[in-house]
Amino acid sequence: MELVQHNRCFDGEQRVYQIQSKALKGSTKFGIFLPKQALAGQECTALFYLAGLTCTEETFVIKAHAQKIAAKLGIILITPDTSPRGEDVAKGDHWDLGQGAGFYINAIAQPWAEHYQMESYIVDELYTLIHDEFLIQDNSVGIFGHSMGGHGALTLALKYPEKFKSVSAFAPICAPSQCPWGEKAFSHYLGDDRSQWLKHDAVALMESKGASFKEILIDQGLNDQFYTQLSPALFEQACLKVNQPLILREHEGYDHGYFFIQTFIEDHIQFHNQQLRTS
Amino acid sequence: MELVQHNRCFDGEQRVYQIQSKALKGSTKFGIFLPKQALAGQECTALFYLAGLTCTEETFVIKAHAQKIAAKLGIILITPDTSPRGEDVAKGDHWDLGQGAGFYINAIAQPWAEHYQMESYIVDELYTLIHDEFLIQDNSVGIFGHSMGGHGALTLALKYPEKFKSVSAFAPICAPSQCPWGEKAFSHYLGDDRSQWLKHDAVALMESKGASFKEILIDQGLNDQFYTQLSPALFEQACLKVNQPLILREHEGYDHGYFFIQTFIEDHIQFHNQQLRTS
Repeated sequence: MELVQHNRCFDGEQRVYQIQSKALKGSTKFGIFLPKQALAGQECTALFYLAGLTCTEETFVIKAHAQKIAAKLGIILITPDTSPRGEDVAKGDHWDLGQGAGFYINAIAQPWAEHYQMESYIVDELYTLIHDEFLIQDNSVGIFGHSMGGHGALTLALKYPEKFKSVSAFAPICAPSQCPWGEKAFSHYLGDDRSQWLKHDAVALMESKGASFKEILIDQGLNDQFYTQLSPALFEQACLKVNQPLILREHEGYDHGYFFIQTFIEDHIQFHNQQLRTS
Repeated sequence: MELVQHNRCFDGEQRVYQIQSKALKGSTKFGIFLPKQALAGQECTALFYLAGLTCTEETFVIKAHAQKIAAKLGIILITPDTSPRGEDVAKGDHWDLGQGAGFYINAIAQPWAEHYQMESYIVDELYTLIHDEFLIQDNSVGIFGHSMGGHGALTLALKYPEKFKSVSAFAPICAPSQCPWGEKAFSHYLGDDRSQWLKHDAVALMESKGASFKEILIDQGLNDQFYTQLSPALFEQACLKVNQPLILREHEGYDHGYFFIQTFIEDHIQFHNQQLRTS
């Protein structure tokens, strides 16, 4: 684990580490914000944030304006990259496939299966590494994300509720099996068998797994330029079906970007803080 | 004035405009955050923010995390680019000269004098445009900036106290006549006559103009990788000499970047808010 950047920030430290990932078979980076409580050796709660298409481990760190509230509440923020990277890693034909577009799943079709193992990377390798290297309170890890990363957060939380105690999302891709971004990614990464796709589709997972969280928070802008890719209504219906409490907030005038995210980031972090601190 | 980007943000709007500048003889962009009070037609206070070397009109907008507090206090934030741009605009040999490094002065030496008229652009052209196009409270404009832009904020405030009622800076270049960045820029933009340089040097201006502000706020990181370029002690001495109240805060562990700025941005905006609202 190599520390490649560190900056004092709100009396804590924003860091970037580079590691050799077994799951991704290559080098990858992640950002981590350590509040002063963590630097002082206290156990902290932690939040994984999964970013959207084209983003990296830096996007949230720079644009989401999350450090101030995380510092105040004493929460560690972990921001992995969105895909494997490198010369020997398959590239897509466009920004919605391949590098920058890993979709937080384990690919099973070639040429993607070789490196695109983001699910294992996040929930096994990075999750373990964070617990080994930093002082994390027992059973106090949440997950959230944006767009493709909102899909990642919802699906990984539903698949691994024993690992993630709280989950929220900004403008998540709720039903990737039923939208162009998801159909493209899943047909490449998973092949044509749509039964495989449903294992990584938040709407389908909610219906099959049932209510798993005390509450889920989703914020969605109503001026989102990618609204038709996102299907919050389908996720709302799925939650209703299985009695999963959901706070779905739709915001007039807000679009898909980080100006939207920064506006509501404090609400999300407060939401996780409450969920993570109740037993 | 062409609106090239606009995003809802904290119930206000973050915009980018493109204009044809007479002073710069070319196209330039500026960012403006309009809090909801401004969108609703209320007169607001306003703050010009001048960014540092290599930055653009976007840097502060993305990295400083200022919108939340500006929204709360009802303050308009204006972020010009740091230099003229374009194919026909002279370029320097490095990132500390030429495009991205305008130093907020009017160049008098060639080839720079043709386009590098940032002082006139900011204090005449853009200042007037903002007052014409938006509802600004009388005598309620402040200025602040970072590094090269901190130099810009201090010097423009001292030169035009009738235009700027409050001034603060993050890690400003306080004595450009006495540091490598300033010596390089001033020798190119102003020529070898050092008496010209002193007209654009905050330490020299403070001594010649005398106390002009109720108070000035400067934040400086003690782990700043460019500390030797900045000379806060010289500015402090100059302020002492002329009885200019100065709050110079030095912060252990903080460096030169926007993680430092975001940590103290709220203090600066609150500082301006207080100064701008008192008569």
